[in-house]
Amino acid sequence: MKKSIGAKTIIHPLPVLIVGTYNPNGQPNIMAVSWGGICCSQPPCIAISIREVTQTYQNIVDKKCFTVNIPSEKHVVEADYAGIASGRDENKFEKAGLTAIKSEIIDAPYVDEFPYFLECKLMLTTNIGLHTQFIGEILDLKADGDVLNDKGKPDIKKVRPIIYGSFSNSTYFGIGEEIGEAFSIGKKIE
Amino acid sequence: MKKSIGAKTIIHPLPVLIVGTYNPNGQPNIMAVSWGGICCSQPPCIAISIREVTQTYQNIVDKKCFTVNIPSEKHVVEADYAGIASGRDENKFEKAGLTAIKSEIIDAPYVDEFPYFLECKLMLTTNIGLHTQFIGEILDLKADGDVLNDKGKPDIKKVRPIIYGSFSNSTYFGIGEEIGEAFSIGKKIE
Repeated sequence: MKKSIGAKTIIHPLPVLIVGTYNPNGQPNIMAVSWGGICCSQPPCIAISIREVTQTYQNIVDKKCFTVNIPSEKHVVEADYAGIASGRDENKFEKAGLTAIKSEIIDAPYVDEFPYFLECKLMLTTNIGLHTQFIGEILDLKADGDVLNDKGKPDIKKVRPIIYGSFSNSTYFGIGEEIGEAFSIGKKIE
Repeated sequence: MKKSIGAKTIIHPLPVLIVGTYNPNGQPNIMAVSWGGICCSQPPCIAISIREVTQTYQNIVDKKCFTVNIPSEKHVVEADYAGIASGRDENKFEKAGLTAIKSEIIDAPYVDEFPYFLECKLMLTTNIGLHTQFIGEILDLKADGDVLNDKGKPDIKKVRPIIYGSFSNSTYFGIGEEIGEAFSIGKKIE
């Protein structure tokens, strides 16, 4: 018999997405977002939800674009910092010792130290409540050569992403053991 | 220097969300969804993206509600099967040996064997392209007592969720080691 816990925003796993934008004064900014994910295969799109009080919200409204940067385990301190500090008050790239490089195709910066990032053009904005959801069309994915697999795609075992345990744990985890092939092990049942 | 990979729908980690609905004939149905995530804190909401050709799409349009069930590592075969088979052709609960129980507050079934699930009422529907995004308000989270932490919330270390490596790996992973406290380790930088 399952117990009622109330209307909680808990799922597992949650991602740690580092959203890159420019402030109105041209200063590059990053923010950590766990309310987000891929939302369409064609056109390729990603959804991120952000509160209106943040600098990143204003930057996306202004510039109509953003990057989504995927950090590795080894960047967990920088990724957590990006979710604590406000880009209104401090230059987060500078304080975290990260390198901001301007995308060649959109007006937004990416984090050079992180293994890969998506360049996104704002497509849809939905005010849900406390959070506003921005859906961005993914124009390109750019990655370091050393995290690619033999098909030329980012390999989770080389990327070693950060998993956020949600506010019920408030802890970050690495990835663990392989537990099965997708679209394959389920065929046992069929 | 990062390499351009093209407009790919890759982020890490991706979740494995098992969406529960009823078919028009009353048969319970499940479907695996990795295009989704929490999208608002207040009201508490979750977004899932589904193709129009699926039975689950039709069921959500009809019933205006759904459950989101979180599987454990040990359910990886059943979870993968839920993403391969079509609920139009087979009773996926029955074939996978899973128990469908009707929610007491919405017209949708949940998976009794999985550690917890969300009961969701459809709030917003957005046709993005190949996928339609359904945003559901989370009305309640119900969980097995043995996956709760001392605060009474689902604990990722007890839930042991499945991480999908995206189509670039096409492999499922478990969670690994703890790598830091959220909203805490980043304070080193400040």
